Amino acid sequence: MSQPQQPQSAINPRRADDFPEWYQQVVRAADLAENSDVRGCMVIKPWGYGIWESIQRIFDGMLKRTGHRNAYFPLFIPMSYLAKEAEHVEGFAKECAVVTHHRLEADGKGGLRPAPSAELTEPLVVRPTSETIIGASYAKWVQSYRDLPILINQWANVVRWEMRPRLFLRTAEFLWQEGHTAHETAEQAQAETDLILKLYETFARDFLALPVVTGEKSESERFPGAVSTLSIEVMVQDRKAIQAGTSHFLGQNFSKASGIKFQSRESKEEFAWTTSWGISTRLIGALIMAHADDDGLVLPPRVAPAQIVILPIAPKPETRAAVFAAADKIATELRSQTAFGEPITVEVDQRDIGGGTKSWEWIKKGVPIRVEIGPRDLEKGSVAVARRDRGPKEKEFLPNADFVAQAGAMLESIQANLLAKATAYRDANTVKIDTKEAFYEFFTAKNADKPEIHGGFALAHWNGSRAVEEKIKEDLKVTIRCIPFDAPVEDGKCILTGEPSRRRVVWAKSY
Amino acid sequence: MSQPQQPQSAINPRRADDFPEWYQQVVRAADLAENSDVRGCMVIKPWGYGIWESIQRIFDGMLKRTGHRNAYFPLFIPMSYLAKEAEHVEGFAKECAVVTHHRLEADGKGGLRPAPSAELTEPLVVRPTSETIIGASYAKWVQSYRDLPILINQWANVVRWEMRPRLFLRTAEFLWQEGHTAHETAEQAQAETDLILKLYETFARDFLALPVVTGEKSESERFPGAVSTLSIEVMVQDRKAIQAGTSHFLGQNFSKASGIKFQSRESKEEFAWTTSWGISTRLIGALIMAHADDDGLVLPPRVAPAQIVILPIAPKPETRAAVFAAADKIATELRSQTAFGEPITVEVDQRDIGGGTKSWEWIKKGVPIRVEIGPRDLEKGSVAVARRDRGPKEKEFLPNADFVAQAGAMLESIQANLLAKATAYRDANTVKIDTKEAFYEFFTAKNADKPEIHGGFALAHWNGSRAVEEKIKEDLKVTIRCIPFDAPVEDGKCILTGEPSRRRVVWAKSY
Repeated sequence: MSQPQQPQSAINPRRADDFPEWYQQVVRAADLAENSDVRGCMVIKPWGYGIWESIQRIFDGMLKRTGHRNAYFPLFIPMSYLAKEAEHVEGFAKECAVVTHHRLEADGKGGLRPAPSAELTEPLVVRPTSETIIGASYAKWVQSYRDLPILINQWANVVRWEMRPRLFLRTAEFLWQEGHTAHETAEQAQAETDLILKLYETFARDFLALPVVTGEKSESERFPGAVSTLSIEVMVQDRKAIQAGTSHFLGQNFSKASGIKFQSRESKEEFAWTTSWGISTRLIGALIMAHADDDGLVLPPRVAPAQIVILPIAPKPETRAAVFAAADKIATELRSQTAFGEPITVEVDQRDIGGGTKSWEWIKKGVPIRVEIGPRDLEKGSVAVARRDRGPKEKEFLPNADFVAQAGAMLESIQANLLAKATAYRDANTVKIDTKEAFYEFFTAKNADKPEIHGGFALAHWNGSRAVEEKIKEDLKVTIRCIPFDAPVEDGKCILTGEPSRRRVVWAKSY
Repeated sequence: MSQPQQPQSAINPRRADDFPEWYQQVVRAADLAENSDVRGCMVIKPWGYGIWESIQRIFDGMLKRTGHRNAYFPLFIPMSYLAKEAEHVEGFAKECAVVTHHRLEADGKGGLRPAPSAELTEPLVVRPTSETIIGASYAKWVQSYRDLPILINQWANVVRWEMRPRLFLRTAEFLWQEGHTAHETAEQAQAETDLILKLYETFARDFLALPVVTGEKSESERFPGAVSTLSIEVMVQDRKAIQAGTSHFLGQNFSKASGIKFQSRESKEEFAWTTSWGISTRLIGALIMAHADDDGLVLPPRVAPAQIVILPIAPKPETRAAVFAAADKIATELRSQTAFGEPITVEVDQRDIGGGTKSWEWIKKGVPIRVEIGPRDLEKGSVAVARRDRGPKEKEFLPNADFVAQAGAMLESIQANLLAKATAYRDANTVKIDTKEAFYEFFTAKNADKPEIHGGFALAHWNGSRAVEEKIKEDLKVTIRCIPFDAPVEDGKCILTGEPSRRRVVWAKSY
């Protein structure tokens, strides 16, 4: 079949042709992560882990500046703890890793087996989340209103058995931060829930260049055991939503389950009001799907493991030393400059491979700025500068000193461009829909065999019932992503039933 | 029974009276950690975790400056992987947590049970260490000598089932860094093993104020599967040793087990040479046992979660605002000063509790400098400064500006004092012993019912046999801590057999 001539791209297939496979290829080409032999568990490779380290460093600072402290609680949860909160166990018992033995022994056939004599009296669950085990500690720590609030976070691994894993987005083991706070009043706990969602929104926007929609989850999408769940939702380039962070107001559900009681200012015994909230390595999946292009990963400078890479191009041995020295010199000069108020991070790639190969590797890795220096540039005292937010062959030749002086501003401009681009994409694909017909058409691919990218965020009225959510989920795989905070009160009719509704909610397909 | 009058101390019992119980009480009084309901697993509380965060931040920087990168590998290891290296499985199969199911279900009696229908085909072991699972990745990553070296580290939790847990020193779950490197030649891998031990030694000495003995382990104390194990050994205040970090040269044992092969420069297929190395939350146990005193924890300023605490003392409401403002002002001034080339870290304790209670809390928490400001100090423009390396009641009254100017130097002096004190203690309790009789006497308590602190590091000759090690271990619970690097060649006779020996090794009781 003849096709119109298309420019070459580094990732095959392209986004438009097969989005899921494009995603896998971007992850692979950028050397971010890979599947391990343990089902559903991934290996996060240095370049991918470097993004996570940026996320940790930045968000940890935001938490500490708002009065939170880190601590660490056990990986294992006694099976009976999980059962303390009815909805919670319902939500997590189906997908957890269960430890039943504490020793292996020879099986007599040259292999090993769990030693029958080392079976645990009570099985342990590898934490899928830590409300119950942390609650047991808080119950001991809290006696009086003077012991409140407790504002604690932990950086940890968690395990939720997944039948359909996908790198970063859905893995059996993932890394996250989970905050767990306890308060004297419902208002204080609600204010904490709101504060954290605001931090998530700010972090996503200002560091990951992800414009998010914020709002409250409908009952059916709530965290098991929560009174309310707030979330940030990212639109990625197949127009689906990724829930990228959640903040839960738990009311007194978990304090009652765990016995977190305190003597109030009025000398009465009361249950504390708690919250929990988390962001995870899933954010990296959202980042990739939102910003990467047909040439590979595109990293926002503020979270890139390296913001600039210097590529010395020295094919001839006689110029090698001089080119390498110049590369190191400019790297040193750049490191003394700042972007976003912090020193610029620079790598020099001295590997002895072809300049073209080297350059394409860094394009695929998404490094914000590539700088080539060859023998001729050396003579001219200039460098060839390429920005990842422009075409792969677009280069600017700049005198060294000019580039060094501009580098910080250039990184800041790339960061701003990525946010602007993602915002424009989201806005272009967010539509108000008022009829069932238009709604169903919006979420239906024209070509069922090889579905093109379609849909988006539909702002539509809803009667508030779970039945409507279920019907639409069944028909279209579309769910309410959130009841947005910024939706104005507006009289309308439920998209499915025609019943009256007072505001629009966000509907989308999601990961 | 009448006893001589002793000065009061904050920790009961004192070190001299019951060292193990003193340790527990120091941990509790400093609010560092506590046991959880999960056997052997601890909860690391914010002040304790803050020490771990210091350790992570500093040592991570040292690793990165020496070319190492972080990554993350799965928590779970297929049971068959563990069995790939014969000594390794022997060493770890006896104490591991085994995951056998991936779902819980109702047991029909109101409780839960592992769902029989969700039994795993192959059980998974929660990593006790990651040589085998990381080896499986390296086998895929390495094709050619050009892919070497691989210099990767991970910060992770690991689980080794412990029958006699002790907070920080020996817990079923602990936190650590584990480095895993692969090299082209044995020499390169050995150089890496040495480099890391040097980093551990430097880190322990310059940051934790722990003077360590470095050397190689005897065969019986080696890491299961290693060709050689190097370690740093700390002497703590009951004169026992704590192995505080190990660096293993694994030869080709694990590369053969995992299939890490590469095409050499001579186009031959060869197995890589690997290393592994780790330090863990155990270091915090060593830190406590080495520096704490009868009033509680004593923290080296370089790893203290806060270096200075300001204690505003304002019993009367009318002076409260002014005292608090002065406390905040001096905190801000201090934060703009540096110690060890970094900004000083300061906390202000505004809690509304008595000044004496507050001060003692911070003594027990080991904060290096306490600063009291009350209404009278305000008038005089001075503060009362107390150093944790001096008596609890020793205060120096200094004009604000003088204290701020001196604070950095004062912290540096405390750091130096702690190292000097620990070094003097170690040296005073390290003795050359040349007869069996003296050796047995050295390691035998005079009072068997309530043993006093005794023993130390004995430098004694050894014939190199495992039989001698076993006999001495059985008789005295004493083992060879290491064959020290700095021991001169010296002819002597084995302490037990009288056979010839060419150098002294370090014998001690240990944790």
